[in-house]
Amino acid sequence: MAFTIKQEIANFGGKLLKLSHESISTKTTMDVNVYLPKQFFQSTSKKIPTLYYLSGLTCTPQNASEKAFWQPQADKYGFVMVFPDTSPRGEQVPTDPENSWDFGHGAGFYVNAQKDPYAKNYQMFKYVHEELPNALSSFHYFQNKIDFVKLKSITGHSMGGFGAVSGFLKLYKDFASCSAFAPILAPSLVPWGQKAFKGYLGDEEKKLWGEYDPSVLVKSVENVDDKKILVHIGSNDPFLEKQLKPELFLAACKGTSWEKSIELHIVDGFDHSYYFISTFVPEHAEFHAKALGLV
Amino acid sequence: MAFTIKQEIANFGGKLLKLSHESISTKTTMDVNVYLPKQFFQSTSKKIPTLYYLSGLTCTPQNASEKAFWQPQADKYGFVMVFPDTSPRGEQVPTDPENSWDFGHGAGFYVNAQKDPYAKNYQMFKYVHEELPNALSSFHYFQNKIDFVKLKSITGHSMGGFGAVSGFLKLYKDFASCSAFAPILAPSLVPWGQKAFKGYLGDEEKKLWGEYDPSVLVKSVENVDDKKILVHIGSNDPFLEKQLKPELFLAACKGTSWEKSIELHIVDGFDHSYYFISTFVPEHAEFHAKALGLV
Repeated sequence: MAFTIKQEIANFGGKLLKLSHESISTKTTMDVNVYLPKQFFQSTSKKIPTLYYLSGLTCTPQNASEKAFWQPQADKYGFVMVFPDTSPRGEQVPTDPENSWDFGHGAGFYVNAQKDPYAKNYQMFKYVHEELPNALSSFHYFQNKIDFVKLKSITGHSMGGFGAVSGFLKLYKDFASCSAFAPILAPSLVPWGQKAFKGYLGDEEKKLWGEYDPSVLVKSVENVDDKKILVHIGSNDPFLEKQLKPELFLAACKGTSWEKSIELHIVDGFDHSYYFISTFVPEHAEFHAKALGLV
Repeated sequence: MAFTIKQEIANFGGKLLKLSHESISTKTTMDVNVYLPKQFFQSTSKKIPTLYYLSGLTCTPQNASEKAFWQPQADKYGFVMVFPDTSPRGEQVPTDPENSWDFGHGAGFYVNAQKDPYAKNYQMFKYVHEELPNALSSFHYFQNKIDFVKLKSITGHSMGGFGAVSGFLKLYKDFASCSAFAPILAPSLVPWGQKAFKGYLGDEEKKLWGEYDPSVLVKSVENVDDKKILVHIGSNDPFLEKQLKPELFLAACKGTSWEKSIELHIVDGFDHSYYFISTFVPEHAEFHAKALGLV
């Protein structure tokens, strides 16, 4: 369960750690980046909370670490950032036979695969929500100063926005807050989600699809604490109409305990890139900082 | 002299334009990114000043646009950012016969090459300081609202830090201010600079080397307006001892009008990457904003 520190990079007031470890869930070596804010290096009695950021299709932990610009926000409020990888990788890990970029390597969709040959490695839900937080908690470098398990929030982009909202709804009590950038919130009804669910969960088992689909989960998960979900989508996002379809999620929320809890902003002129994400990171950081009791 | 707008990206309060144009100096198509701050889209009678950012070895205009995070600073103070490419490129442009990454494509060193076969295309000094500012000035999209020529400052990283300080000293009256991140300030005395100068300017002509070398230029350029040069270098920069050698530049400044004008900060623990650059961009932005009369 130990991590290898591949790189330790001074960045803003804190440090970015590039880590890797042997994952039991995925049976591979997994990379993960952790940003320690300046507060980690100051003496503090309170445990520092964690914000998990789930990346989109094709991404590694590097993309958001380099381009999203969470670090100054983490310093501002005092939370740790965790950037997991988007799938197991490596020659021994089966990927899309057609080598597409929206299935297989870099496209694990944060579900526990049931179908062969993917079931063996693609256990990303278990990895992100169970194994990784626990492994980070026990890593000696962090000196038990960070709460990776009980005081945490989650966010993500595109496929990772799906992963964030899906994980948040499935593990409602575990997260203080959830937000997403250009998320896929009705995966059972759009091509990216259908391809992933069919490949990882199987075609016949639509019951399993519903266990991960935010538009299905909102109907059974009670929002007892009146938590909000903050979502930004660019009006010029090329995936807006075919893959994101936020109107389907809003319709699913109607009449549920989530109806008034979705803060969806369609922002004029923005696209699907990190230029869009970095612009709205400060707003999301403040949203999570409030929920985590940092403001 | 017209530009093609390849992409127009909403980013923070303004827009990032990815442009390309046919350069007379380099005889190639050159890419350049321009960030227009929010002030460009507001009605203003004053012309908006420009900060040129020269990138380091191997970079295109994308690296700094994605990772340096100048954009929120440009919005804060109200200056335009220009990110030129680091060399001419393309199959017809000669590069290093050994295909190294520190000479040829992506490594133009911001000089006007004198030696064949490079002289034909590698006219980067002329391109960056003459052709590009003039071409941008006359581009209709900018509606004559930006001063690309007379109210400008310059900064850069590594090879681009050399380019910034070299250009600033050679064209002292043209720039309000100059700063640099991990610059090569004694190029005639270090491997990167020697390889570039030998290749582009010729081995025999060490006089030509001195025309670009900041450590030589400080001896002849009088700092009549008492302008400062702000420099940050990370103490963990792997190139510090062999390529950057800031002590050589400081020694060269001794007894000149620049002796008390170099604000060099060796910052503890930082490396050579954009994690280092982005951390100190806010400080450099404020420095230039003051010189440009924006603060």
